[in-house]
Amino acid sequence: MKTKKSHKGKVVTFGEVLMRLSPTENRKLQQASNLDFFFGGTEMNVAASLAYLGVEVQHVTNVSKDFVGESAIAALRKFGIDVSAVKKVDHPLGIYFLEVGSAMRSSQISYNRLHSSFANITAESVDWENILEDADYFHWAGISPAVSEGAYQTLKRGLEIAREKKITVTTDPAYRSNLWNYGRKSNDVLSELIDLSSVFIGGVNEINEILESDYAFDEEGFVVASKALITAHPSIKKIFDKVRTSVSSSWQKVYGRAWTGEKYLQSEELEVRDVVDRIGTGDAYAAGILYGLQFFDDQHVLNFANAACALKHTHVGDANLVSVEEVEEVVNGNVSGRIKR
Amino acid sequence: MKTKKSHKGKVVTFGEVLMRLSPTENRKLQQASNLDFFFGGTEMNVAASLAYLGVEVQHVTNVSKDFVGESAIAALRKFGIDVSAVKKVDHPLGIYFLEVGSAMRSSQISYNRLHSSFANITAESVDWENILEDADYFHWAGISPAVSEGAYQTLKRGLEIAREKKITVTTDPAYRSNLWNYGRKSNDVLSELIDLSSVFIGGVNEINEILESDYAFDEEGFVVASKALITAHPSIKKIFDKVRTSVSSSWQKVYGRAWTGEKYLQSEELEVRDVVDRIGTGDAYAAGILYGLQFFDDQHVLNFANAACALKHTHVGDANLVSVEEVEEVVNGNVSGRIKR
Amino acid sequence: MKTKKSHKGKVVTFGEVLMRLSPTENRKLQQASNLDFFFGGTEMNVAASLAYLGVEVQHVTNVSKDFVGESAIAALRKFGIDVSAVKKVDHPLGIYFLEVGSAMRSSQISYNRLHSSFANITAESVDWENILEDADYFHWAGISPAVSEGAYQTLKRGLEIAREKKITVTTDPAYRSNLWNYGRKSNDVLSELIDLSSVFIGGVNEINEILESDYAFDEEGFVVASKALITAHPSIKKIFDKVRTSVSSSWQKVYGRAWTGEKYLQSEELEVRDVVDRIGTGDAYAAGILYGLQFFDDQHVLNFANAACALKHTHVGDANLVSVEEVEEVVNGNVSGRIKR
Amino acid sequence: MKTKKSHKGKVVTFGEVLMRLSPTENRKLQQASNLDFFFGGTEMNVAASLAYLGVEVQHVTNVSKDFVGESAIAALRKFGIDVSAVKKVDHPLGIYFLEVGSAMRSSQISYNRLHSSFANITAESVDWENILEDADYFHWAGISPAVSEGAYQTLKRGLEIAREKKITVTTDPAYRSNLWNYGRKSNDVLSELIDLSSVFIGGVNEINEILESDYAFDEEGFVVASKALITAHPSIKKIFDKVRTSVSSSWQKVYGRAWTGEKYLQSEELEVRDVVDRIGTGDAYAAGILYGLQFFDDQHVLNFANAACALKHTHVGDANLVSVEEVEEVVNGNVSGRIKR
Amino acid sequence: MKTKKSHKGKVVTFGEVLMRLSPTENRKLQQASNLDFFFGGTEMNVAASLAYLGVEVQHVTNVSKDFVGESAIAALRKFGIDVSAVKKVDHPLGIYFLEVGSAMRSSQISYNRLHSSFANITAESVDWENILEDADYFHWAGISPAVSEGAYQTLKRGLEIAREKKITVTTDPAYRSNLWNYGRKSNDVLSELIDLSSVFIGGVNEINEILESDYAFDEEGFVVASKALITAHPSIKKIFDKVRTSVSSSWQKVYGRAWTGEKYLQSEELEVRDVVDRIGTGDAYAAGILYGLQFFDDQHVLNFANAACALKHTHVGDANLVSVEEVEEVVNGNVSGRIKR
Amino acid sequence: MKTKKSHKGKVVTFGEVLMRLSPTENRKLQQASNLDFFFGGTEMNVAASLAYLGVEVQHVTNVSKDFVGESAIAALRKFGIDVSAVKKVDHPLGIYFLEVGSAMRSSQISYNRLHSSFANITAESVDWENILEDADYFHWAGISPAVSEGAYQTLKRGLEIAREKKITVTTDPAYRSNLWNYGRKSNDVLSELIDLSSVFIGGVNEINEILESDYAFDEEGFVVASKALITAHPSIKKIFDKVRTSVSSSWQKVYGRAWTGEKYLQSEELEVRDVVDRIGTGDAYAAGILYGLQFFDDQHVLNFANAACALKHTHVGDANLVSVEEVEEVVNGNVSGRIKR
Repeated sequence: MKTKKSHKGKVVTFGEVLMRLSPTENRKLQQASNLDFFFGGTEMNVAASLAYLGVEVQHVTNVSKDFVGESAIAALRKFGIDVSAVKKVDHPLGIYFLEVGSAMRSSQISYNRLHSSFANITAESVDWENILEDADYFHWAGISPAVSEGAYQTLKRGLEIAREKKITVTTDPAYRSNLWNYGRKSNDVLSELIDLSSVFIGGVNEINEILESDYAFDEEGFVVASKALITAHPSIKKIFDKVRTSVSSSWQKVYGRAWTGEKYLQSEELEVRDVVDRIGTGDAYAAGILYGLQFFDDQHVLNFANAACALKHTHVGDANLVSVEEVEEVVNGNVSGRIKR
Repeated sequence: MKTKKSHKGKVVTFGEVLMRLSPTENRKLQQASNLDFFFGGTEMNVAASLAYLGVEVQHVTNVSKDFVGESAIAALRKFGIDVSAVKKVDHPLGIYFLEVGSAMRSSQISYNRLHSSFANITAESVDWENILEDADYFHWAGISPAVSEGAYQTLKRGLEIAREKKITVTTDPAYRSNLWNYGRKSNDVLSELIDLSSVFIGGVNEINEILESDYAFDEEGFVVASKALITAHPSIKKIFDKVRTSVSSSWQKVYGRAWTGEKYLQSEELEVRDVVDRIGTGDAYAAGILYGLQFFDDQHVLNFANAACALKHTHVGDANLVSVEEVEEVVNGNVSGRIKR
Repeated sequence: MKTKKSHKGKVVTFGEVLMRLSPTENRKLQQASNLDFFFGGTEMNVAASLAYLGVEVQHVTNVSKDFVGESAIAALRKFGIDVSAVKKVDHPLGIYFLEVGSAMRSSQISYNRLHSSFANITAESVDWENILEDADYFHWAGISPAVSEGAYQTLKRGLEIAREKKITVTTDPAYRSNLWNYGRKSNDVLSELIDLSSVFIGGVNEINEILESDYAFDEEGFVVASKALITAHPSIKKIFDKVRTSVSSSWQKVYGRAWTGEKYLQSEELEVRDVVDRIGTGDAYAAGILYGLQFFDDQHVLNFANAACALKHTHVGDANLVSVEEVEEVVNGNVSGRIKR
Repeated sequence: MKTKKSHKGKVVTFGEVLMRLSPTENRKLQQASNLDFFFGGTEMNVAASLAYLGVEVQHVTNVSKDFVGESAIAALRKFGIDVSAVKKVDHPLGIYFLEVGSAMRSSQISYNRLHSSFANITAESVDWENILEDADYFHWAGISPAVSEGAYQTLKRGLEIAREKKITVTTDPAYRSNLWNYGRKSNDVLSELIDLSSVFIGGVNEINEILESDYAFDEEGFVVASKALITAHPSIKKIFDKVRTSVSSSWQKVYGRAWTGEKYLQSEELEVRDVVDRIGTGDAYAAGILYGLQFFDDQHVLNFANAACALKHTHVGDANLVSVEEVEEVVNGNVSGRIKR
Repeated sequence: MKTKKSHKGKVVTFGEVLMRLSPTENRKLQQASNLDFFFGGTEMNVAASLAYLGVEVQHVTNVSKDFVGESAIAALRKFGIDVSAVKKVDHPLGIYFLEVGSAMRSSQISYNRLHSSFANITAESVDWENILEDADYFHWAGISPAVSEGAYQTLKRGLEIAREKKITVTTDPAYRSNLWNYGRKSNDVLSELIDLSSVFIGGVNEINEILESDYAFDEEGFVVASKALITAHPSIKKIFDKVRTSVSSSWQKVYGRAWTGEKYLQSEELEVRDVVDRIGTGDAYAAGILYGLQFFDDQHVLNFANAACALKHTHVGDANLVSVEEVEEVVNGNVSGRIKR
Repeated sequence: MKTKKSHKGKVVTFGEVLMRLSPTENRKLQQASNLDFFFGGTEMNVAASLAYLGVEVQHVTNVSKDFVGESAIAALRKFGIDVSAVKKVDHPLGIYFLEVGSAMRSSQISYNRLHSSFANITAESVDWENILEDADYFHWAGISPAVSEGAYQTLKRGLEIAREKKITVTTDPAYRSNLWNYGRKSNDVLSELIDLSSVFIGGVNEINEILESDYAFDEEGFVVASKALITAHPSIKKIFDKVRTSVSSSWQKVYGRAWTGEKYLQSEELEVRDVVDRIGTGDAYAAGILYGLQFFDDQHVLNFANAACALKHTHVGDANLVSVEEVEEVVNGNVSGRIKR
């Protein structure tokens, strides 16, 4: 591990906290009589992961003003996330149901989020000036501005203030075609927000979506696409991508690749043959990037993020509950899973 | 038991199907990691109960076009309810969370239903003519028209066609002050719909709400209120009320009383000291009335409905899974709970 | 406590081991997706209880030659019962399903035992001479000879050898009208077997069944009936009865009474308002009698058995897992349930 | 997909409904304290699968007249199976226990079915004329006539009436050597019943059993055996076989092959490395054949049935809860298990 | 409610965090195959309760340097307790096992704490100066100095600094005879520490233990004993006692009484007939006192603490998860447990 | 299988019984709310495995004098282990927590055993003369003398008496660097105890530890190390090693190898791609050796032990619940896991 600095800067994340409800034992919902639940959401997952890596992190969101919202807040507290900027409002918490697949059977997700407490957030309700006062990083994902006008405006306001404060902005512009129902075009919004960001955690798919381009997915395509993104959005300095091979629901391979603005980098591929939970693996990767950027050179950032991503597949729930030591062990090639006593 | 006739007529019910999610062992949601779930909803509970009593029953509603909605339909099929008029639409299924209290601690419910598949129902989407073709009874509750304009219009259309077809209409005008957010006044709507109904399953509270009156809750108050209701809404012929004493979350007493248009009747009080589940007990009572009206004289209707209501307290979930024989045993005073081998 | 002697004699019990399957949370079977299971059976319950009271006890039965039978044997071993006389045969283990009631709702039991491994037992397959070699007590219940000709013959042979060996024979002649399907009349069989027994653990109901009499259930009736039983079956020396008041499924009261051949005795009544499990409470009483007969005067035998019976209501499963100390505490009036640290 | 017609014909199935009881987490029964349960049975599994594929299907059987039988009926209703021809009788429902293996450890099954409600079925109790009135297909398996004389006679009577009504009869002649205890020779019975059938869902093993032959298991052997079967039983028009490679309890491969009467066909092999549940996979295949015969050419029938069979390995329980769309996706080569949102 | 002031002062608590492990369904440990777990400990329970009442609270303790200790810390964070003064050391976390009784059957507890991470705490390892810097209250219980010399010395040092800082010290001198094994006499130690405290949350039992006196338990005895305590330990200003009637394990009654230094006060008695969890009810009372002292007159302090105590009986786990509003409702006599929607 | 003799000799084992507590579903402890538990411990696991193989086996240990210790004894009884030499003492039972990994994530174990009931055992408390009276084998592992002086002295005394009685002593000298805290050097103690043993179940690692040597791990290194061990400790006659390849937490390969004093032997390698439980696999191997030594030639001993070890990976819990028949099937190459009906 090559350390660059020792201070761990405070990270602020913004996004919806959803309750996930899923049957165990690969049951279909109609075979179940009870459901496990977890609290997750792409940006909150990044926050939780960072908290476990020892980083100070604050999450900004709305939850419901009822015992469901209180449970969400308690879960965030348990993760070690600063919840002082979480507001309670009179709309229900967002929910998603998950049926977990296996082998060639896909997992299926059904959302109930379009009228949630988060979807009803307003820019005025968030005191960005105060929240971002002592922040070093601000992380957002493309799902939030896709949910509602309020979420979009709130995020935009945050990013503008982050720019003023010279906070590093990272983004996972995850595109979801089945959102974006509130009247704005995804390209317009994402382009605007990417211009307020400097680290892009995404790949050819996301770039093609934003640039309405058609780059290839191979190494060359990734490099060309990355350069085009930087040309179109010069605020972006670095691009970190994650390449997944889904052999089956239960068998996944991942490696990271990056365009640093100067050169192409790639991590080794890691293989998980016995996936415990596929959800949140991209968020674990993003958290690895965010952590790495503070301490490592770019190659190690990639290796660290990819190992974190692989390890997430072995934890149930949306969040990646791994320490820096556990991630570094996998970076160092120890993947034999020997018992630790 | 004094039987009046032997034919069991088909009943049609209309209302939302909600997924109920609750922790076990009296846990607060934030203490739980999994949740039991059941499908319920006041009118669906009546339908399920009637199906277990051996009555042919069809439920009219919207569910979500996803695996959650499919599970709701499967649950209704399991109860033995005709689901051929259930539609799947692109809105999520309504949900409620329940924390179960004990002793002086209240149970708490939090709803997520205002933008549900049912709230988005439209009068045009329901083929009432066909559905009510061979029906003998139509049952509705005051919650449905409180949810949305669509639900109100759909119900009104159904009641108008029921009147044309001379179908007996029963109503449980359950008033919920925290609904009625879509712009109409509850009195106006309920008054209109009660004019299309003939059996009123409610008491002084509900009458006071509808008539904007202030009758007392004692026997005399009930009789006077009932007469006033009939005067104001002459389509109503009979009124069946349920009087509950809530000693604590775990200890309840109930008895039934009625104004038959001619005289006051009252059942014995039944006591449940070890409540298993408080939800749906009013629906069990309504189902008892609906069943009884087909077979019994009014006194026995009351006794039967009250026994059904008491028995519901001993079953987990929203629906009352009891047979006619089990109810009659309690009517006959056998409340000792001896093991049956 | 008044101790008579200090040696604890070996007890032999004979009867079916059944697997009990029941949903939790008072669910009906059709609401459940999994079932708790226990191994029980009236005589085995007596054996298990005696083992926990520190008595050497051996159980004689047949189980299935498969992993179900192996599990039954493992369960008996866990109780501390000597299983060296348990045979494995090519017939399935007997099973019963239990739906647990509450308040006025009865528990329901459904059996699957008529073609079980125990029903197929034969007198030749049991080496009674060897088993009873060092026994001091032999306990049987009226259910066993009600199951099949083989069970009847096997039991009769055991009782005959017990008589030869001058072993004290106790019986709980529990009458079950829905058994006795194999061709013999219950009176004939029970009368014959009672003539081989000396302690009768039953009351007016059972005596009326055997003598085809009609004695009353009050104290006087009990005394007269007891005397009549002894007249008809002079091998019987003492009669221990248990009087239960079933207020509801969840609320039970019990007291013991006895005819010692010379006088009437009665214990105090104990009340269990929060029944955990009703099954096996009679067997806990019988085990208390069997234990008490070895150590106590008749009044203390009654008190001890009644306290054991009451305590069984607080344990889930068929067997009473209490120590002598725990029973004696209740005998001594400590029923406040203070935490023991 | 090459569709032949658009009408989905009604299918009638006949066979035992068993309750399956199994510990979770690969536990042995003696390590467990509770058991998951499902209702299954080879022909009922076919019925359930067809119902999920959108086919109208009615199941003919006996269940117990108790809450266990009621639960079985409720489960069938939940699957969407027509239960109007299910009778309740005074014999217990059949049961089987399952210990689930892993890797080189085999799963083990122990049955309790020889005196079940189904084993006690009688030909007179089934109104085949009425049941088969509007049926297009009748499906049976070799297990039913192996259980009891009554089951055999009932099935034979049904097949004779099916022939009269020119209903297509499909059979899965699954041979089970540990049944056939009631006095008839399996060859005699199966030969007789196959002469009343036209589609044979089985392979060299089953043909060898019926013809008392010794054909090889390779492609050539299968073709020769198929021809010999058709020669001996000219009512059989097509033969659909399933070839399984059991690498371990947790890793299975399957492909389908057929003799259409004119040519040999074969599907691609599908591999399931993470088996969730091995039970009922053959029934899923049979259901795929039955569905496919109504809509597809023979090659697509094979592909569809094989994909359905593979998908069954990913669902817990005996029944295959997949839609036509899910099966077709696998037929089209999408086996990567990507999350569907 | 009569409020005295509006500022909620920070509370510091000191004591062991134990993992509680208990079977569900009133099972004995040997009947169970899994255990529910909670983190508790008398002072931590007070802290958790205060956090739910909205008070800033910090807990001082040692946990194990392993994933068990990390889980304990996460649990405290979830409660909302400040964990910045929790140290991780190379000794295991304390544990206790609990078998939950019912009716006349006592709950039983078995501890494993004598060599725990907390027992190994040292006065030097705690930075009391810093921790108590901004504290308004310091709460300790008699269990901590009973565990080990280190715990005693650490507590004493904290109390001395609290005195210097003029922090209000409250104590629950809970006496446990089966601790105090490390060489000191309980009277000596408790007397010394009480001299550093000003609010005594205990009654005649505790006073008799400390003063080696023999006062009666009635009202007069309590007043006399209280006066004697104040005479002997003049730092004590007020005494708050809790009087419990244990009808059975499942049925408890409690009321509070106090000697304010000037007069005797008493709350109404509250009755819990359906106890969910008996553990931590005294800690809930203490937390109620600590909360009340900041806001209420003494009578309301008593009422509030007693209502909090009663409500704890309805929550599973060691901590009392109630809000101020819920407690006040019970204070105001609303004990009917009506559902809140 | 080549049988040498038919008598199964009694085996005595000595060592700690620990309660294992672990979350299910690969959860981290802090994600769980309940824990599965099992009783295990390396020597007890050998005993349990031998009992399931049909060998008479007695275990010598201390447990706690509370309901935890009683549960441990009941668990041993259930396994079929003779518990007559188990003592109850006033120290808590040893415990370990297990977080189960997957893929590259390691399982983690945290112990609480240094002040346990077993660590407090004394040589005087064990009646070795009587226990070993009719024993043929005595098995010990290197963990026991690493725990405490008392455990070391107790074991040494047992081994000395075993030598006097000419009992075959087998040892698994499992070295655990994080034990040995009580003051003795591991080499000294293990060397002394190995001189009292004749079968060494360990490999190059263990030999290097004992001889402070540095032999290579390949075949040649194993043979040279074995010879050196025998030279240094001539009481050792045979050495049985187990070679494991840990591909990941979920994928393990094992084979056995031996130095018989005369020649090198090796079994085939067995592969478990779907590990259910990794704990106790070495103990299953040791039990296979102990069983095999009584019946087989050395090559079959190796094959049998390795197959037993592989099968353990498919059972949850610490003990290997397999029969001789199941092991022999795997020895014979049947690893396809076909369902057994």
